[in-house]
Amino acid sequence: MPDKSEFQVVENQSNLTNKNVNNPYAGVDSFLSNVSNFQIIESTLREGEQFANAFFDTETKIKIAKALDAFGVDYIELTSPTASEQSRKDCEAICKLGLKSKILTHIRCHMDDARVAVETGVDGVDVVIGTSSFLREFSHGKDMAYITKSAIEVIEFVKSKGIEIRFSSEDSFRSDIVDLLSIYRTVDRIGVNRVGVADTVGCASPRQVYDLVRTLRGVVSCDIETHFHNDTGCAIANAYAALEAGATHIDTSVLGIGERNGITPLGGLMARMYASDPEYVKAKYNLPALREIENLVAKEVEVNIPFNNYITGFSAFTHKAGIHAKAILNNPTTYEILKPEDFGMTRYVSIGHRLTGWNAVKSRVDQLNLPLSDEQVKDATQKIKQLADVKSQMSMDDVDNILRVYHASIEAGEPGQSPEFNTLIERAQ
Amino acid sequence: MPDKSEFQVVENQSNLTNKNVNNPYAGVDSFLSNVSNFQIIESTLREGEQFANAFFDTETKIKIAKALDAFGVDYIELTSPTASEQSRKDCEAICKLGLKSKILTHIRCHMDDARVAVETGVDGVDVVIGTSSFLREFSHGKDMAYITKSAIEVIEFVKSKGIEIRFSSEDSFRSDIVDLLSIYRTVDRIGVNRVGVADTVGCASPRQVYDLVRTLRGVVSCDIETHFHNDTGCAIANAYAALEAGATHIDTSVLGIGERNGITPLGGLMARMYASDPEYVKAKYNLPALREIENLVAKEVEVNIPFNNYITGFSAFTHKAGIHAKAILNNPTTYEILKPEDFGMTRYVSIGHRLTGWNAVKSRVDQLNLPLSDEQVKDATQKIKQLADVKSQMSMDDVDNILRVYHASIEAGEPGQSPEFNTLIERAQ
Repeated sequence: MPDKSEFQVVENQSNLTNKNVNNPYAGVDSFLSNVSNFQIIESTLREGEQFANAFFDTETKIKIAKALDAFGVDYIELTSPTASEQSRKDCEAICKLGLKSKILTHIRCHMDDARVAVETGVDGVDVVIGTSSFLREFSHGKDMAYITKSAIEVIEFVKSKGIEIRFSSEDSFRSDIVDLLSIYRTVDRIGVNRVGVADTVGCASPRQVYDLVRTLRGVVSCDIETHFHNDTGCAIANAYAALEAGATHIDTSVLGIGERNGITPLGGLMARMYASDPEYVKAKYNLPALREIENLVAKEVEVNIPFNNYITGFSAFTHKAGIHAKAILNNPTTYEILKPEDFGMTRYVSIGHRLTGWNAVKSRVDQLNLPLSDEQVKDATQKIKQLADVKSQMSMDDVDNILRVYHASIEAGEPGQSPEFNTLIERAQ
Repeated sequence: MPDKSEFQVVENQSNLTNKNVNNPYAGVDSFLSNVSNFQIIESTLREGEQFANAFFDTETKIKIAKALDAFGVDYIELTSPTASEQSRKDCEAICKLGLKSKILTHIRCHMDDARVAVETGVDGVDVVIGTSSFLREFSHGKDMAYITKSAIEVIEFVKSKGIEIRFSSEDSFRSDIVDLLSIYRTVDRIGVNRVGVADTVGCASPRQVYDLVRTLRGVVSCDIETHFHNDTGCAIANAYAALEAGATHIDTSVLGIGERNGITPLGGLMARMYASDPEYVKAKYNLPALREIENLVAKEVEVNIPFNNYITGFSAFTHKAGIHAKAILNNPTTYEILKPEDFGMTRYVSIGHRLTGWNAVKSRVDQLNLPLSDEQVKDATQKIKQLADVKSQMSMDDVDNILRVYHASIEAGEPGQSPEFNTLIERAQ
């Protein structure tokens, strides 16, 4: 981590309004799109518990559930009550908290599981079964007729208890499309609340997601939930493509934790959706709370926030190249699609390095109130670059030193000529 | 980090061939697609130097360049020789290494920069200028007529020196489409080698990328390079969409380092492309070298490899939920789109936790050569779950302990009945 004094905090100077009107980077318009109308099913307490390092005790689960509720997620999904005795008790405890978020639990498509789930107090049950030929052969070994029969039995039972129900396939993108659409239509007709599409292995690409969800949108009238693993780096883009194609619900977890390298991260999804419709996202979710939730979960599963994390990574709002710094100082929206202050974050412009530019240096000169002409600032910038070529960790103090020496050289009648420049460079070598 | 003894290494049991024939998760077929025919422009030594923490001295640059060359990247892009005196010397030094990768440098669209660049010994020059109204107003303040004139002058000059040349717009997705296509057609006609499309602010979505690149593909006959920032989580998916639409070159950096939270990461792109065409990717790039390159760069810029990093993150090949573990033990391709051994990595199946399943436990029982029936393994699995409910860091030793006590209880004629189970749980509480 660089010395923070290397950086310069810049006030937001944007005069642009936030109106989405004429927003050139809004979603591709479509009557199908739910980019400005979606719900989050937050699965840190289910998918997240499948992360290698995750062990959540009751107190931790409650803390995380309350934080997600305060953030404004629409649903909180919990580990199956059949996983273990404590899992069942924790599920019951969270249902009793009286949160605004609806509480779901996630079970296999089996009456044994369904009977336990409906007694926990949840608002809804998420049912899943593997439909791909891979899973049918190597996991549960059941055929589509059996899967359909089980699905109908479980769905009708859960509905009879007045509880919301979702039916999802697993590994949907390696399933037979006819099998998939057939079972989705069947469960839609018997009144399932949502069908789920899951990229369980993280193989899908956005165009595949768009095509499958758009086709499904024409087959069922219920809501469509989507779940994307991130093995090949498309979990956020796939969620976005799904919403463009008419999906209604997106599964997330905090920092994306889950099986293997995880799923669509809550923060990353917020970045993506904010870029398309900032007003909708800001009105619905408590964005400045994101950092705290990520810190909480990172601590519990003993990982660091990735250096390149969306929004909250340490350099997410740091601008370095001279050409970027100059433009950011003129208008932050030139190189920023996200306003840091909307997330409780701060912008930095880094100027003490060899890629710096004279416009960025000039803004520091102005802060220091040094009377230098543009030509003199350009000359001083060359001195900064000289020092940066030999000094890896250049602080704002180093920059200020050069500017002061430069200013003194002018007052001495010899602009840019001072033995002190050489001293600074020799000391750094 | 969990105790590694918690995990169980599983040999690859896949008998499936790697043939892409009938690969259900291959790219959407299209005559435009370059998913199985693309080149990498590796920009760790240019874009990566714009990362907040990056300061590469000459020795480090050479080490990184050699590692990238050995990995097999097609191009290595370097910081402009005009950035600083040392930047110019480093550029010359890397050109003299005689690497297989072609060497590029990246300059502003200006004759002052071009004259310096062509003297460094590079194979090609990447020229960039901001074309969006944002950048034209707040960055360089130049109009399209001026931009076109400068572009032609620089391109003709660089070509006259027998050096490859690319012309890229900056912030392409917020630029006027007519302006963009007009200047791209102009530079294509005067013989530029590549045109570049850059999502400088990280706002683009895959469908926007596909649309723009497909349109561009119909306008120019030269190669198309693309550059994607990751602020909204689409940098890998956008690169993939660009290739589907006919782009030929993708910009990457190691771990994605660059301005703000960076660009398309080399490793993440490998994961994505491998999922679509493993044979092409394995033949062209030295995948097992990826981890070493990432470690090298991570050390130099003083960051940790993100816990959820593609391929090399510590849990990228860890399987935890019982249903996953069971299927992976039957056939790894059920829940794995990437074969860990192709990247020099190892698969782990985690079984000491409350989400475990009896099939995964059974495989451990077999390894220990304990003569337990399926019913007995199921019963023993419940004991493991009981202990896991109270013990967050359960090692493989803990699992083995339970299995041995269970086995002893059978030999004692009282299956599952032993005071030792309670002792284990009490000790953990």
